[in-house]
Amino acid sequence: MNFKETLSEKITQAEAVIRQYLPKEEGFAKELAQAMNYSMLAGGKRLRPIFMQETYKLFGGEGRVIEPFMAAMEMIHTHSLIHDDLPALDNDEYRRGKKTTHVVYGEAMGILSGDALLNYAYETAFLAFDIEGANAARIGRALQIIGDKTGIYGMLGGQSVDVKNEGMPMDWDLLEYIYGNKTSALIECAMMTGAVLGGASEEEIFLIESVGYRVGLAFQIQDDILDITGDAKELGKPLHSDEKNHKTTYVSLFGLEAAKEKVEELTGEAVETLKDIEGNNEFLYELIESLTTRRK
Amino acid sequence: MNFKETLSEKITQAEAVIRQYLPKEEGFAKELAQAMNYSMLAGGKRLRPIFMQETYKLFGGEGRVIEPFMAAMEMIHTHSLIHDDLPALDNDEYRRGKKTTHVVYGEAMGILSGDALLNYAYETAFLAFDIEGANAARIGRALQIIGDKTGIYGMLGGQSVDVKNEGMPMDWDLLEYIYGNKTSALIECAMMTGAVLGGASEEEIFLIESVGYRVGLAFQIQDDILDITGDAKELGKPLHSDEKNHKTTYVSLFGLEAAKEKVEELTGEAVETLKDIEGNNEFLYELIESLTTRRK
Repeated sequence: MNFKETLSEKITQAEAVIRQYLPKEEGFAKELAQAMNYSMLAGGKRLRPIFMQETYKLFGGEGRVIEPFMAAMEMIHTHSLIHDDLPALDNDEYRRGKKTTHVVYGEAMGILSGDALLNYAYETAFLAFDIEGANAARIGRALQIIGDKTGIYGMLGGQSVDVKNEGMPMDWDLLEYIYGNKTSALIECAMMTGAVLGGASEEEIFLIESVGYRVGLAFQIQDDILDITGDAKELGKPLHSDEKNHKTTYVSLFGLEAAKEKVEELTGEAVETLKDIEGNNEFLYELIESLTTRRK
Repeated sequence: MNFKETLSEKITQAEAVIRQYLPKEEGFAKELAQAMNYSMLAGGKRLRPIFMQETYKLFGGEGRVIEPFMAAMEMIHTHSLIHDDLPALDNDEYRRGKKTTHVVYGEAMGILSGDALLNYAYETAFLAFDIEGANAARIGRALQIIGDKTGIYGMLGGQSVDVKNEGMPMDWDLLEYIYGNKTSALIECAMMTGAVLGGASEEEIFLIESVGYRVGLAFQIQDDILDITGDAKELGKPLHSDEKNHKTTYVSLFGLEAAKEKVEELTGEAVETLKDIEGNNEFLYELIESLTTRRK
């Protein structure tokens, strides 16, 4: 199997893991479960759960303890998408070609289903304590990382600063904070959690954090690049939206060539750091490198 | 010290515990921290943390492991208030005489600060793993209870059904589901978490759940009663708002006298069950009984 086939198979597997942990659509709160599942099953690359699982394997992780965490990771990511799309934030009617949650279920249910997914992520991760032979100390450490990277010191912090500075000029300091938290934090989280559960040392977890940071930053800068050089059809959205919205991006600050170089540089550093770690996962290296040439 | 003085001292102590765990208002995400703290410090009876601590003591709990959980409990409660007040839900401009979070910080920040408080509750509870001598298995069990009682099978489930049925006639089955989840779930959660951390057996935790359920239900029915017989000044809101909003309540279904009897009955059962448990906590019994005569 070539890389693309392997990736596609891994996405199918991650999808199956995630589906196992979704709430049942029954009882009085049936519609809340439907709204949660609607967004969870609206497609997506399942990149974060795959990053988690592959980092877990890099450190020799085996068994099912990773599975509730993979589902939890995707729930947190989906929670952030539902709330980002709300009228008071980005006010988006469509995502990945489907109507957004609040458009289908109403704004109140959009807010509550986002809340419920964030909470359900923790409920799901807590199931790991009940898996036979699970290491409670590792689970505790993984939970601390998830809390930290999701909240005010991670994704939600980045999101709040992004919202506050919408349409305003920004310097690299501020933009780097937003990219590092709004985008990198959950990739750091996925990889660090995989590392912890796979048995990595604190020093290795620290290295993995720097890898996740670089992968996330490269991912975000690639987004900025694609907004100019991409194909509107492949992307599923019009080009040049950043310029139209007066959005400060890596490209607007440093130019297209510098942006491309930065993506290469960050990706190279990430893969090199990974290769220095004992253990081997060719697929993970290829996955990270593939993101530099992605078209959507 | 009489009961009122003891309660007031305990509120002051709970307040001090909660303050220790609030996020610092600094760095790029300073405004998010400010919005979180604004609502956390907007007053409130701190009933849930006190219920948690007193149940902990009932089971002989000692030491500081309860403290991050007390703060977490209040963060979850406050998260629910911020999101309840949003324009898409209750659209409330004032709470406890102060402007609501989204009125002061804008709607986007209202949504994000609610999210961040829910997440911060878990971040805070996870700190318990680092307390010397903490029992990781008990912490894991307490976390599972918090997840369960907060999410779709608890508070958020109740909230979603309440929103869906606003202004519509309801039967007792449906109303009991809403009361049991929107109001009771977090009181069950507080008491059960205190019990687990104090070393209660699974059987005792089950009993405590039934106590929390009854206390929460009595609390909610007392709210329904006060909307008719209360003092608008003491309550800080106009009377007869339920009738005006065509809200189904225990009183509208069964009448005022039956409602008063139900509060007495539930309270009596709750205290009796508690007294059957080995261990003794007179203050906790008095606290529960005091709720039947509360005027606000």
